[in-house]
Amino acid sequence: MNILLVAGGSKKDWPQIDFSDYAFFVGVDRGGLLLLKEGQSLDLAVGDFDSLSQEERLLVEKKAKRSQTSQAEKDDTDTQLALEETLKLFPKASITIVGATGGRLDHFLANLWLPMEARFQPFIRQIVLKDEQNTISYYLPGEYTVKREADKKYLAYCCLTPVENLTLKDSKYLLDRQQVPVPTSYASNEFVGETAMFSFDSGVIAVIQSKD
Amino acid sequence: MNILLVAGGSKKDWPQIDFSDYAFFVGVDRGGLLLLKEGQSLDLAVGDFDSLSQEERLLVEKKAKRSQTSQAEKDDTDTQLALEETLKLFPKASITIVGATGGRLDHFLANLWLPMEARFQPFIRQIVLKDEQNTISYYLPGEYTVKREADKKYLAYCCLTPVENLTLKDSKYLLDRQQVPVPTSYASNEFVGETAMFSFDSGVIAVIQSKD
Repeated sequence: MNILLVAGGSKKDWPQIDFSDYAFFVGVDRGGLLLLKEGQSLDLAVGDFDSLSQEERLLVEKKAKRSQTSQAEKDDTDTQLALEETLKLFPKASITIVGATGGRLDHFLANLWLPMEARFQPFIRQIVLKDEQNTISYYLPGEYTVKREADKKYLAYCCLTPVENLTLKDSKYLLDRQQVPVPTSYASNEFVGETAMFSFDSGVIAVIQSKD
Repeated sequence: MNILLVAGGSKKDWPQIDFSDYAFFVGVDRGGLLLLKEGQSLDLAVGDFDSLSQEERLLVEKKAKRSQTSQAEKDDTDTQLALEETLKLFPKASITIVGATGGRLDHFLANLWLPMEARFQPFIRQIVLKDEQNTISYYLPGEYTVKREADKKYLAYCCLTPVENLTLKDSKYLLDRQQVPVPTSYASNEFVGETAMFSFDSGVIAVIQSKD
């Protein structure tokens, strides 16, 4: 089951979305309104909704099949709450998050690092962040094959933590059991075929496919 | 001495820049051309210049007081090379980097994490990344006072590594000796006065001041 989670970032940064790919739609704060404006159902709305006008807020409350109102001052971000609630409902779903990049970089980093939290790590392979130019997937130690997305040119291995024995195969630039002591973005690598392989022994890696 | 380093990202993401604040201008690849178009001197140009037309490239080569041409296939990014060269020339300078955010997130992360590399860590307090909405400064363990920028509302403590005993004072949200086991963005904090204090005992923190 595929779920689309729309965070509150600007719609101009969204990727191309085929809404028919998704069976359940989650809106975070302003993201709920954006989903309704696209003519989509709003299966779950989460947020304090303080970025909406009274009228917009009433619309979201009326149309949302479920909603969870958060406090304005709280420890978790609305996106964290939405992801937690979504995974409670559908622990095996694939979740694509849009509206989570661009603009304020403290927000982007909070979103980038979401899947590393202990509560979300068991679901790390099910979570993908997408925007107009980038697709971000997450990996725990192991050996993997990455499939090239048709519209993407670049392939990056972003070590979000120290990483041991990073090995890259079947790509333009190769590594053999590289030790990575601090977070490092091995950017601008490229596929040479339709897939690339990589492996590592400890840490967390975000693989980013991107285009100019 | 203040140095402006212009990386190759789009000019639309630049902050407001008062060029008279800077005494030395570094252009990375397309960034060199952008500096010339602003009517600024180009004291150092670094890059493989493959993003420029033949005509643009000739202009950069003619106008640059120094230049360092990198190979298209290399281990370091052009921004890494430019920062290294700049710090060799002026090891005590304050370096503001623009054009390093937005667009491809593998590039942004490479830039975000630059100051954590062993070769740049001794200079970590001298390096600032800026764009239209964000100012990013870097800190090694210690106790610090952050001064509010006039146009910024939000204050975030982004732990780029695990961090021990993070304490936040004089701000809207407080922490007392918090243990941070994975990279975490404490986003959307706010100043309550003109300064805020924080301290920590291990790791690296990026402080981001931002506005909507």
